[in-house]
Amino acid sequence: MARNITPKGQDYSQWYLDIIKVAELADYAPVRGCMVIRPTGYSVWEEIQQKFDMAFKETGHVNAYFPVLIPNSFLEKEAEHVEGFSPECAVVTHAGGEKLEEPLVVRPTSETVIGHMYSKWVQSWRDLPLLINQWANVMRWEKRPRLFLRTSEFLWQEGHTAHATKQEAIEETEKMLEVYRRIMTEELALPVIPGIKSEGERFPGAEETYTTETMMSDTKALQAGTSHFLGQNFSKAFDIQFQNKDEQMEFAWTTSWGVSTRLIGAVIMTHSDDDGLILPPRIAPKKVAILPISKDESRAEEVLLPKARELGDRIESIIGLHHVDVDRQFHMRPGDRFFYHLQKGVPLRLELGEKEFEKGTVRAVRRDTGEKLDLSWEGLETAVSELLETIQRDMLEKARAFREQNTYSASSLDELKQIVETKGGFVRAYFGGTKEDEKAIKESTGATVRCFPLEDQDKTGRCFYTGKEGCRLAILAKSY
Amino acid sequence: MARNITPKGQDYSQWYLDIIKVAELADYAPVRGCMVIRPTGYSVWEEIQQKFDMAFKETGHVNAYFPVLIPNSFLEKEAEHVEGFSPECAVVTHAGGEKLEEPLVVRPTSETVIGHMYSKWVQSWRDLPLLINQWANVMRWEKRPRLFLRTSEFLWQEGHTAHATKQEAIEETEKMLEVYRRIMTEELALPVIPGIKSEGERFPGAEETYTTETMMSDTKALQAGTSHFLGQNFSKAFDIQFQNKDEQMEFAWTTSWGVSTRLIGAVIMTHSDDDGLILPPRIAPKKVAILPISKDESRAEEVLLPKARELGDRIESIIGLHHVDVDRQFHMRPGDRFFYHLQKGVPLRLELGEKEFEKGTVRAVRRDTGEKLDLSWEGLETAVSELLETIQRDMLEKARAFREQNTYSASSLDELKQIVETKGGFVRAYFGGTKEDEKAIKESTGATVRCFPLEDQDKTGRCFYTGKEGCRLAILAKSY
Repeated sequence: MARNITPKGQDYSQWYLDIIKVAELADYAPVRGCMVIRPTGYSVWEEIQQKFDMAFKETGHVNAYFPVLIPNSFLEKEAEHVEGFSPECAVVTHAGGEKLEEPLVVRPTSETVIGHMYSKWVQSWRDLPLLINQWANVMRWEKRPRLFLRTSEFLWQEGHTAHATKQEAIEETEKMLEVYRRIMTEELALPVIPGIKSEGERFPGAEETYTTETMMSDTKALQAGTSHFLGQNFSKAFDIQFQNKDEQMEFAWTTSWGVSTRLIGAVIMTHSDDDGLILPPRIAPKKVAILPISKDESRAEEVLLPKARELGDRIESIIGLHHVDVDRQFHMRPGDRFFYHLQKGVPLRLELGEKEFEKGTVRAVRRDTGEKLDLSWEGLETAVSELLETIQRDMLEKARAFREQNTYSASSLDELKQIVETKGGFVRAYFGGTKEDEKAIKESTGATVRCFPLEDQDKTGRCFYTGKEGCRLAILAKSY
Repeated sequence: MARNITPKGQDYSQWYLDIIKVAELADYAPVRGCMVIRPTGYSVWEEIQQKFDMAFKETGHVNAYFPVLIPNSFLEKEAEHVEGFSPECAVVTHAGGEKLEEPLVVRPTSETVIGHMYSKWVQSWRDLPLLINQWANVMRWEKRPRLFLRTSEFLWQEGHTAHATKQEAIEETEKMLEVYRRIMTEELALPVIPGIKSEGERFPGAEETYTTETMMSDTKALQAGTSHFLGQNFSKAFDIQFQNKDEQMEFAWTTSWGVSTRLIGAVIMTHSDDDGLILPPRIAPKKVAILPISKDESRAEEVLLPKARELGDRIESIIGLHHVDVDRQFHMRPGDRFFYHLQKGVPLRLELGEKEFEKGTVRAVRRDTGEKLDLSWEGLETAVSELLETIQRDMLEKARAFREQNTYSASSLDELKQIVETKGGFVRAYFGGTKEDEKAIKESTGATVRCFPLEDQDKTGRCFYTGKEGCRLAILAKSY
């Protein structure tokens, strides 16, 4: 079996693409910038979807589906929105054999069309809050596509809510950010930093954008999900009015929030190594691979395989159906079989050779550390389940430690520039500049303001760029 | 509360739209022919999806995602396919602010782009079979849209498989038809008839199309799902070749099969009545509504409501989380509260009034029959769960009996014409004509050949149209 992975240290971008290739996660589509999510990649997405979808439902949200085509004129109703998205749109001009009267865009995001529908559905305060989410494909034409991170089409969820008061809408925006933080941290083992976006990085049409930022293993930042407080911008543009308890008409307050298949890119770049993909157990579709191994192929088939199946069933009774892969690729050499599961990121490999069979054990090999342990058949399901939780915790801790080791402070532009150029990583610095200042900082350093972390909200200090006092603490970094 | 439903007998089309409106299932989108699936409708779709998705996975299929945009030239590679789908396509001509070199169509179905990818993934017999399914939106421009039944955009699943032998591909086509039949019958309570399509009704590019046909409550037919044996048509058009065990190159044999949000339309039209929606319990998101009722609102809130919640929790422990709706719309009159759940199709309503509270019972009202029963709190969860299964069975039986009552036989065109005009329904007749004959029959009677039922495959007789002997038994009907 070929081990065709470019080392991370040699060419990070190529390493990333090689991981995707050997793990069969995705492929470029015939249309430039679009991707095919292959079954292995899609099954990771299904695991991720399930975690988020459950959390949305637990917090009172329901799913719906809005149309993929949006009249071009809708985008124009919100000034910042059209400026932000119009250049990235794919446009349908013909349909059913005829030229359309008005061009339609393939949705880049759905605030506009959902705003239009909400204006029909919302009449009274009794209709609020409206708490709707949609799982859908969206399209933003990419000049420099990269699988999962930037593709012209991607899959995502977009939550859209409408509320009677400003306070309630802000609470919703913050609540969904916290849902994102919790799932990214606990399930995807991404030690994300929740924070508020600077003016220059805000969603087009939002009053405030919240974000979760996380560090990739090349020390660059990646925005993993955002939650927007939209104020009354879209309710005014689309006339979402309701009669309040005093029988007065008011505009609703809206929010939107989304995560996408980009998260798969974040997981790959946070956890994987030069041998291939490493998946956190909680989102790994196959959490355990069991390999019956014998030089005597008929013994492997007839004696070891049934035992492997029995052990697999017992493990699935604890960790869930379809999560154990009993490997019967007997036509391959053991080393190639090991590597097959290793490249695909299966968190735990259990080898059942002749020696183990005699002793009533399996040889467990952790994907994240390579550590080997002998586990008895007795109580194997519990031991495996605990080991998977240990791997999950260790992966998060490793990523968190890496981020901390690569986080610096700066109090001047020169200092920021030097850190970004020589070390990379996250740079903590007080910042109180304008959108234009952000642009200038990006031009001279390559770094952008990633966010003002929520946990540092109480801290204020002297802006590293303008020298102004009383400014918030920001994190700056180069980013994906 | 308004009971704004046009009676079925007065205007069937309007009745159908009224049901969708009062049950808040869907709404027209601002783009002509497109729809918004509202939360209630989407939750029905989620239930339906889940049943099919589980069955696909149990039969060895995996999910993936292919791009929504397809180069126009791809469609042209399969002659019948382009002829069938090109006139219905929505076309993207501009993207990212520029005119595209080649127009892209929004997928009407994905045989072409999936064929293109399969040709890259399939090299050897070891790569086969490829058993992939995708859940996606597709677009076929509709001149006469009707919610769920014919919309320019709809949601569906499309399975696409590739096999080493013709026999295996035919078996797959038939296996998936049987999966469709089973789920439609058992879960959606649609007594579908599995059969084979005539030449004139075949999928563009298929060698054989299998279908499940079902009768709506106006006696018209609806095609509920199809499964296609594509032969080597697409593997030749897209060069899906593999090296067989003898190291010879061969073209693969492919299949495709799909069901869509149209199924929701089928469920509505099969089961609902003049009061509103009726959903089969197994796909009803809310299977039970419990209504604490008292003239004394504080007693309703403080005494009856907690009891209703307790009973609801016990019922959910058997029928599953989120499936019970504990109604606390105390601002509404009891009759309006009853009607609220009735219109939305909740299979079973449990009323907990003062009288029932005293006796330790609830008054159960079946949505399908209106039948009322008093059920004791003791063992309520089991009684409810059994009652839901009874409702499910009865709904299927009722639909089956209706179909049988409205099924006739014909042995001449005149006879067919007369039945279609005076009675409607399904007409069984031997048929051995050509595609052109089918067209002529449709023009003179309005009916089309729905299928040659699988269960009648052994029967042969004299064609009602051509007079030829030894022809297969067909079902003809007007259809959606």
